[in-house]
Amino acid sequence: MKPSIPKGTRDFSPVEMARRNYIFDTIRTVFRLYGYNPVETPAMENLSTLMGKYGEEGDKLLFKILNSGEFLKGVEPELLDGEHYPRLTSRLCEKGLRYDLTVPFARYVVQHRNELQMPFKRYQIQPVWRADRPQKGRYREFYQCDADVVGSDSLINEIELLQMVDEVFRRLNIRIILKLNNRKVLAGIAELIGFPDKIIDITTAIDKLDKIGLDNVNAELIERGLSQEAVDRLQPILAISGSLDQRLAALAELLAPSETGSLGVRELQTVINGVTSLGLTAELDLDVSLARGLNYYTGTIIEVKAADVQIGSISGGGRYDNLTGVFGMPGLSGVGVSFGADRIYDVLLALDLFPQEARATSTTVLFANFGNAEAAASLRLAKELRAAGTAAEVYPDTVKMKKQMGYADASKIPFVAIIGETELAERKVNLKNMTTGEQTLVDADAAEILKVILK
Amino acid sequence: MKPSIPKGTRDFSPVEMARRNYIFDTIRTVFRLYGYNPVETPAMENLSTLMGKYGEEGDKLLFKILNSGEFLKGVEPELLDGEHYPRLTSRLCEKGLRYDLTVPFARYVVQHRNELQMPFKRYQIQPVWRADRPQKGRYREFYQCDADVVGSDSLINEIELLQMVDEVFRRLNIRIILKLNNRKVLAGIAELIGFPDKIIDITTAIDKLDKIGLDNVNAELIERGLSQEAVDRLQPILAISGSLDQRLAALAELLAPSETGSLGVRELQTVINGVTSLGLTAELDLDVSLARGLNYYTGTIIEVKAADVQIGSISGGGRYDNLTGVFGMPGLSGVGVSFGADRIYDVLLALDLFPQEARATSTTVLFANFGNAEAAASLRLAKELRAAGTAAEVYPDTVKMKKQMGYADASKIPFVAIIGETELAERKVNLKNMTTGEQTLVDADAAEILKVILK
Repeated sequence: MKPSIPKGTRDFSPVEMARRNYIFDTIRTVFRLYGYNPVETPAMENLSTLMGKYGEEGDKLLFKILNSGEFLKGVEPELLDGEHYPRLTSRLCEKGLRYDLTVPFARYVVQHRNELQMPFKRYQIQPVWRADRPQKGRYREFYQCDADVVGSDSLINEIELLQMVDEVFRRLNIRIILKLNNRKVLAGIAELIGFPDKIIDITTAIDKLDKIGLDNVNAELIERGLSQEAVDRLQPILAISGSLDQRLAALAELLAPSETGSLGVRELQTVINGVTSLGLTAELDLDVSLARGLNYYTGTIIEVKAADVQIGSISGGGRYDNLTGVFGMPGLSGVGVSFGADRIYDVLLALDLFPQEARATSTTVLFANFGNAEAAASLRLAKELRAAGTAAEVYPDTVKMKKQMGYADASKIPFVAIIGETELAERKVNLKNMTTGEQTLVDADAAEILKVILK
Repeated sequence: MKPSIPKGTRDFSPVEMARRNYIFDTIRTVFRLYGYNPVETPAMENLSTLMGKYGEEGDKLLFKILNSGEFLKGVEPELLDGEHYPRLTSRLCEKGLRYDLTVPFARYVVQHRNELQMPFKRYQIQPVWRADRPQKGRYREFYQCDADVVGSDSLINEIELLQMVDEVFRRLNIRIILKLNNRKVLAGIAELIGFPDKIIDITTAIDKLDKIGLDNVNAELIERGLSQEAVDRLQPILAISGSLDQRLAALAELLAPSETGSLGVRELQTVINGVTSLGLTAELDLDVSLARGLNYYTGTIIEVKAADVQIGSISGGGRYDNLTGVFGMPGLSGVGVSFGADRIYDVLLALDLFPQEARATSTTVLFANFGNAEAAASLRLAKELRAAGTAAEVYPDTVKMKKQMGYADASKIPFVAIIGETELAERKVNLKNMTTGEQTLVDADAAEILKVILK
């Protein structure tokens, strides 16, 4: 019986770890350069914190922890008939695994409100868990990398977050399209066509524009209760085209009658002017059909697509004005972005963009093992190399050279240091470059070895 | 209703993260210098992997995940009477949170046996979860930092692991006592006094020597079924004293009649000679009462105590010859060490050993915000500083200077860059050193700013 792991979860081997850490390190470095500081929250949250925050479907996708001990004690027997799952579950389980990093962050801010310096800029890189049906590219355990700032409604935050997104993908060498929208623009559109209460229906439908096309979007709008007149009035907005500047100008004109809509356009302009004047590597795009996570976004909406790979969004975010309200702390504005590490991993792999350094081992020198006395000399030299910051290993067993070289080869260790009987007697080391096959005989001294391997 | 987190779990604030990362980074750097490579396993394992590996008590301490969907389906109604918890639990839950990193590692090795290059050296730094009663210094979620090598029975592995332990604590400036023992020595003792089958009873009792004293240990041995004669024969071993060399010699002599015991002493001698000849910062100690985790250790046993703080062991490990046997892969020898990050954290805090750099933010310069035009200039300079690797922030809101300076102060940001109306007009920046209060007026140029802050 071969052991296995739960479906939808993964083991990460050294080479996968190296690649994933390359992504995390890049993101973390950029977060830190912008003054975002790390926070971590527990894997388990009280279910009272998590339930009701992700919709009815989300509640079902939470992994719930069975209470310890006599978990049936006090549970009404009538709940055990298989007809009362939600109520029974809440009696059997007090805790669940976090579903995202946003709700735990909101909980964190409220719980620690008296210790926090506002504006509070935090980043968080941790796994989340969802009892989703596993499929290609969708896992039950995956990492999210979030940066958020709360306690400031300045658009400078948006500008810096977009610079961060741009910088992360520039460093990863992934060409991206940075799509922007603003919830106020969506509200303005709903207002303009006479259905201000239907903003969620309208945006849900037009969010599908890319996927299902204009005709189907229009049909869905009628289905969702809009009049034909409203759908007609929407068409000029959906038809806006041209350069970014032209589209912004057209949108400003069309939304002029709506105060909210106009404010949204002005916010977009400020953000777009801000980032373009600072210089952006990414291609910037305005997308009025962009509505992701609308339920809590209230201003800027951000989505990132890879330009050279067909894959969903690889990053996204936006502004929310009331994330902490549900925990009793209303009126705190925040804005943030989230990077999808798994999809970025897939993009880097598809485009062959992982750097050489992202390999399984950091070891530079493997000392082959020819016996006790030789190994003792190797251990001394290995210690000196490590003191100089160079990772070194001593092959632990005195086995055939073929096996030892095979280990170096499979582990992609660039140099093998050979101290056999002769070398030991002459206080020498024979260094074999595993890429070129070249051998160099040097004094048994760390400085001499470093000269060869750093060449 | 203020939100909270499950008892025994913790949030980590930026300053706690900085301190914890200082510990993790130190450990990780040393692991890598010795050629250990990172692996990660899922938080959830199948309960079939975890159950029965930690004793009956351990099974109870596993956090179990309630199956998704209609979890009562197919559960025999008679299991719901509150009298069949173990069986009912196994019907309600297929998965649990990992309890340590050792069992998941054994599972990993067996599952990936065909992909692994032996000897396989891996490290793993991940949280584990235990439904233990929370108390001071004991949490329900905490990190373990493990390094293990499997597929080699060479004592060179022990020597390198001890060097790693020594190097980690040397870098952390924690003075330690490195205690060693060998399971074969314990087996030899049991054999010598005529109760080879009682090795677990004997070692469980003598493991308490430090805590309960010799008389109580002897009483417990009788209670556990040893004869008075056997206890008498044990006394010379428990009375061994003198220098490390003297004690090793005495042990060798006393255990000479036992083949296993003698092998254990020789292994100890090889390991001790190996590490001392390479040079060790830590104080080395032989402790025949050391038996930790005996149930799977088969050779060397390692335990680390802080010399200057009264706290339990802060690191430990040993050799196990059959960790993967339970998963159907017998005969694979391994040896490893584990660092207790939480206790190390407490030791560093108690001894005030955290370095200055382990502070909440990495930001070096905060640009104060005096309005749109000034902020635009600040954003440009901040971008240049970041490109040069210096973390910089622009205060997002145009609020009173007092508030902005308060933010810099509370965040311990060392420099505030002021671009007011005058500075903007003259293309200057006023740099305030927040430690000395000194102000320096320089050209609005990243290179000029760097000259001041790197001085």
